[in-house]
Amino acid sequence: MAVLKVHGNPMSTAATRVLACLIEKGLEFEFVMVDMRSGEHKKEPFLSLNPFGQVPAFEDGDLKLFESRAITQYIAHTYADKGTPLVIPGKEMAIVSVWMEVEAQQYDPAASKLLWELAIKSFLGMQTDPAVVEEYEPKLAKVLDVYEARLSQSKYIGGDCFTLADLHHLPTLNYLMRTPVKKLFDARPKVSAWVADISSRPAWCKVLEMTNPK
Amino acid sequence: MAVLKVHGNPMSTAATRVLACLIEKGLEFEFVMVDMRSGEHKKEPFLSLNPFGQVPAFEDGDLKLFESRAITQYIAHTYADKGTPLVIPGKEMAIVSVWMEVEAQQYDPAASKLLWELAIKSFLGMQTDPAVVEEYEPKLAKVLDVYEARLSQSKYIGGDCFTLADLHHLPTLNYLMRTPVKKLFDARPKVSAWVADISSRPAWCKVLEMTNPK
Ligand SMILES: N[C@@H](CCC(=O)N[C@@H](CS)C(=O)NCC(=O)O)C(=O)O
Ligand SMILES: N[C@@H](CCC(=O)N[C@@H](CS)C(=O)NCC(=O)O)C(=O)O
Repeated sequence: MAVLKVHGNPMSTAATRVLACLIEKGLEFEFVMVDMRSGEHKKEPFLSLNPFGQVPAFEDGDLKLFESRAITQYIAHTYADKGTPLVIPGKEMAIVSVWMEVEAQQYDPAASKLLWELAIKSFLGMQTDPAVVEEYEPKLAKVLDVYEARLSQSKYIGGDCFTLADLHHLPTLNYLMRTPVKKLFDARPKVSAWVADISSRPAWCKVLEMTNPK
Repeated sequence: MAVLKVHGNPMSTAATRVLACLIEKGLEFEFVMVDMRSGEHKKEPFLSLNPFGQVPAFEDGDLKLFESRAITQYIAHTYADKGTPLVIPGKEMAIVSVWMEVEAQQYDPAASKLLWELAIKSFLGMQTDPAVVEEYEPKLAKVLDVYEARLSQSKYIGGDCFTLADLHHLPTLNYLMRTPVKKLFDARPKVSAWVADISSRPAWCKVLEMTNPK
């Protein structure tokens, strides 16, 4: 029996963020499917794992966590000696933290709005609202301009090696690259090389296999 | 000459988050005023400190950081042995991290929208949009319901002692408690006791003195 458990859904960007981290670390875990269509995440026992009723939730023995980015940080620090080092010791970690905050505070709000409008809504049979797309495309473009400059100075967004600061982008990137917003990434050479690089990591390919079974 | 420098503006919630942290730690620092009215934050040299053109930015000698929550984490970890311990060693830190993410991902998006509509706009001579208030009040109320349950189990939001998870709320709380949204806090006894407790900390009172000179 696996000690580590992720409660989630394969469509969830936040849940796949945690999967990507566990697979980079080479850790064994159990994936517990949460049936969001029947609202399982809004009822007990799930609410005891996450009082906000959102996936993912995570268990490591007695320790119960939620919020994807808190979970990945816990995994990266606790299992520092396993698999890919996703955090860096010392002062350089402060810079990685800055870019982790940039993902959460600058990139994700625009990315999440656009992927809801352009990917999830059509999947749910709902109509895209062009006004929302028009509002958030320039916001994402501004963030990507900063990324283009950043990636001209360092190979990865947090520094010279792949870290949580890159990994946290993967789930939303994966959706956005299949929407018209892909053009914003394609127009920026450093950004598109970075997207190609981090999206082709074996761990991420495994996440895609796991969550999109043939 | 102080080694630590905060570039910011006294009205900025993100900048006062960093000031609160520095004062809790008992660290000396220099406050470098950024004249946002003249758009100083959107020009060089400020853009070299933060490419997003937002306050705060922070310097510790050669190290330059931005994003308030990355700055406070750097300060709390680097100066762990000074002043109030704002982080906890070991497994309990994972729980503090969860609630730091809750502040950033669940509380702040609603709180920031409401404080923009109800506090900043009127200060700038703009009109509050009641539709936005109507949309975000129930979102904040839902978060505060979770906080009420959480604060029935632990004295502070991250655990038994005051940590960054509490501190990060102070700047937005301070504005919201002077708006009609105060009623959402007042209606929840554990939440309002927590607000009263953390708002009366000597470090926070010093921040208010510094940023609202008589
Ligand atoms: N900030 C949270 C976001 C979690 C989240 O929004 N999860 C979505 C799926 S990606 C969800 O459960 N949505 C259902 C809901 O909000 O009711 C995290 O990073 O874990
Ligand atoms: N996520 C950033 C937010 C910074 C932020 O929004 N700062 C505001 C003042 S509170 C600002 O500089 N606004 C000007 C702008 O966005 O153009 C942080 O926590 O540091």
